[in-house]
Amino acid sequence: MTRSAQYEVSMQMALNLARKGLGFTSPNPVVGSVIVDAAGAIVGMGYHAKAGMAHAEVVALKDAGEKARGATLYVTLEPCCVQGRTPPCTDAIIRAGIQKVVYAAQDPNPAVAGRSRAILEAAGIAVESGILEPEARYLNRHFNKHITRQMPYITLKSAITLDGKTAVANGQSRWITGEEARQDGHFLRGIHDAIAVGIGTIIADDPLLTCRHGGKTALPHPDVVIFDTFLRTPRNAAVLRPSEAERRVIIVTSSTMMESDTATRLLGAGIQLIGLPPASQGLPLQQAFAALYEQYGITSVLVEGGAGLTSAIIKETLEDEHVIYMAPKLFGDEGMTWSGSLKVPTPDKAYQLRLHSVERLGNDIRICAHRREHGNL
Amino acid sequence: MTRSAQYEVSMQMALNLARKGLGFTSPNPVVGSVIVDAAGAIVGMGYHAKAGMAHAEVVALKDAGEKARGATLYVTLEPCCVQGRTPPCTDAIIRAGIQKVVYAAQDPNPAVAGRSRAILEAAGIAVESGILEPEARYLNRHFNKHITRQMPYITLKSAITLDGKTAVANGQSRWITGEEARQDGHFLRGIHDAIAVGIGTIIADDPLLTCRHGGKTALPHPDVVIFDTFLRTPRNAAVLRPSEAERRVIIVTSSTMMESDTATRLLGAGIQLIGLPPASQGLPLQQAFAALYEQYGITSVLVEGGAGLTSAIIKETLEDEHVIYMAPKLFGDEGMTWSGSLKVPTPDKAYQLRLHSVERLGNDIRICAHRREHGNL
Repeated sequence: MTRSAQYEVSMQMALNLARKGLGFTSPNPVVGSVIVDAAGAIVGMGYHAKAGMAHAEVVALKDAGEKARGATLYVTLEPCCVQGRTPPCTDAIIRAGIQKVVYAAQDPNPAVAGRSRAILEAAGIAVESGILEPEARYLNRHFNKHITRQMPYITLKSAITLDGKTAVANGQSRWITGEEARQDGHFLRGIHDAIAVGIGTIIADDPLLTCRHGGKTALPHPDVVIFDTFLRTPRNAAVLRPSEAERRVIIVTSSTMMESDTATRLLGAGIQLIGLPPASQGLPLQQAFAALYEQYGITSVLVEGGAGLTSAIIKETLEDEHVIYMAPKLFGDEGMTWSGSLKVPTPDKAYQLRLHSVERLGNDIRICAHRREHGNL
Repeated sequence: MTRSAQYEVSMQMALNLARKGLGFTSPNPVVGSVIVDAAGAIVGMGYHAKAGMAHAEVVALKDAGEKARGATLYVTLEPCCVQGRTPPCTDAIIRAGIQKVVYAAQDPNPAVAGRSRAILEAAGIAVESGILEPEARYLNRHFNKHITRQMPYITLKSAITLDGKTAVANGQSRWITGEEARQDGHFLRGIHDAIAVGIGTIIADDPLLTCRHGGKTALPHPDVVIFDTFLRTPRNAAVLRPSEAERRVIIVTSSTMMESDTATRLLGAGIQLIGLPPASQGLPLQQAFAALYEQYGITSVLVEGGAGLTSAIIKETLEDEHVIYMAPKLFGDEGMTWSGSLKVPTPDKAYQLRLHSVERLGNDIRICAHRREHGNL
């Protein structure tokens, strides 16, 4: 095996380990690490399993024990050099006698990026970086946005037909896509801090908005955010039932509604409220997402529609990513539209996305795309 | 190489050769053939280049000359055993001393399927079949339908946005997809006998409907079919200009229009007319396609919209295949719909397709799907 092939194979393994942390590490990144000795044998593996617990490098070093001496440590993210809830990983790496560190992506935090590398090199450790960097950066897209922009990463999820419909004329949408797509959708819920919907979706579908991944609750339930200008969320909405899931429910509403009896009742029932001055076209979405980040530490939001909320987000270029589950079915003109009113005057003024991936999922298609503006996170 | 790997590699080569005939062999199938000697060396190659010219096996045998003796002949379709415009291939194979014949797909013509195999085996030649059969059958889907059902194979081609729109509100659609998708669309034109559009498309876009593949006219121009109940095709429509391309233009119209002055003028200008009694919802499409097959020998039709024609074809389950070029763009609610009115009452009554392939084409997506009913051609 050439050196660069060895790098890629080891880093791929580290990325696979990192993925095991998805859904559990927020607001931290997911990180995976493997330690390979001079003979090419893997002597240690680790990943960051949960916010507050040991970092990937430390887990891998512990796994390797004395065999770490003289070995190469692969890690998906530049090791940390600061004391957080756990001690700096650079110290542990130096102390263990690691000879070389290979990392995929630099720490995106502008305040620390590259500093760890300097510390390791000053301690006589060889450092290489950039191996499988695009994959590593994509894996931590939620973290990268929150740490560099102090705003949640916003994913728009949709299940649509080939002709762009989310439901037939009477509003029925169960089920557009097949079981595999729906499972993938639950995984997507589990790796976001919150799910957001418009009040129209609550009234029309009364969804639970829990994460049911793999048939059981393996991933945590995300918080629920409802955009509800006039506090129309029904008293008995499924999403408000305390027994359904341990999670916060946050309703974003008009500031004028904050003094209402409904607001008092909701607050009394443990529901969180964010009151914002309404903009000309409904709630001020940018401000709402900023408040979710600042007041509740929400670093990623999965928006599940409907068309009003979706089109408002698209028009303000707030979304970072689209995940579209597309069923090879046709509902025809009469069906309910997905993208809502966008008022595109000519084809060159279309809202343009950049394809990230296209794949089959059972008999459905999974399309992942970014807004051009956010493609480089 | 194992024997089955050798079979697949050789058959793949034969399929690649067969593809060179696409667009030129109608109403014949495309066929490719390679001859491999006992040592595994390729000693002959051939394909059916044009209707009326030599069959693939004969070209390959001529290429191999004396080296064909004792060799294995791979061919994508069961060799013919009948005298057509060229002599039976079975005779040529036996005469050349071929020891084994491996073919991909049986001749789909129920009258001859399997007969050639019997003739070859009776002559002491070993025969194997079914190698890469699905690929071979798909390659000749147009031929397979015409030979077994005496009807043209119908492909619906669409260029749409992610939200299922073919144009913005004012009708502008240039360009939804990028250059690679448009080139692929021209290739699609070149491999069909005819392109069909509704009169609305002629009036709105005044398209040329020529095949401009690879920047030059490499593939032939298909015939043009216009569904035009009231003979509204403008006198100066681009598609009627005799200089644009050597091809037939066939207008399908209401039988009551056949006595009109317009009909007389069109016939005088060399335009073909098919008059049919109108059905409750416009022209009787099934009858129209049958007439195109019977009167003009058209074995495949590429339907390029618009929404009225598209939805009528879908509702009658006339199409065999959808080729959808999807751009990662959004036009929003106001855009013009692709699939037209389908009146689907509940999600389980959706018009259901079966995915054949999904791939990226530049920044666009190419989706190929079949109607379930036609999946087994």
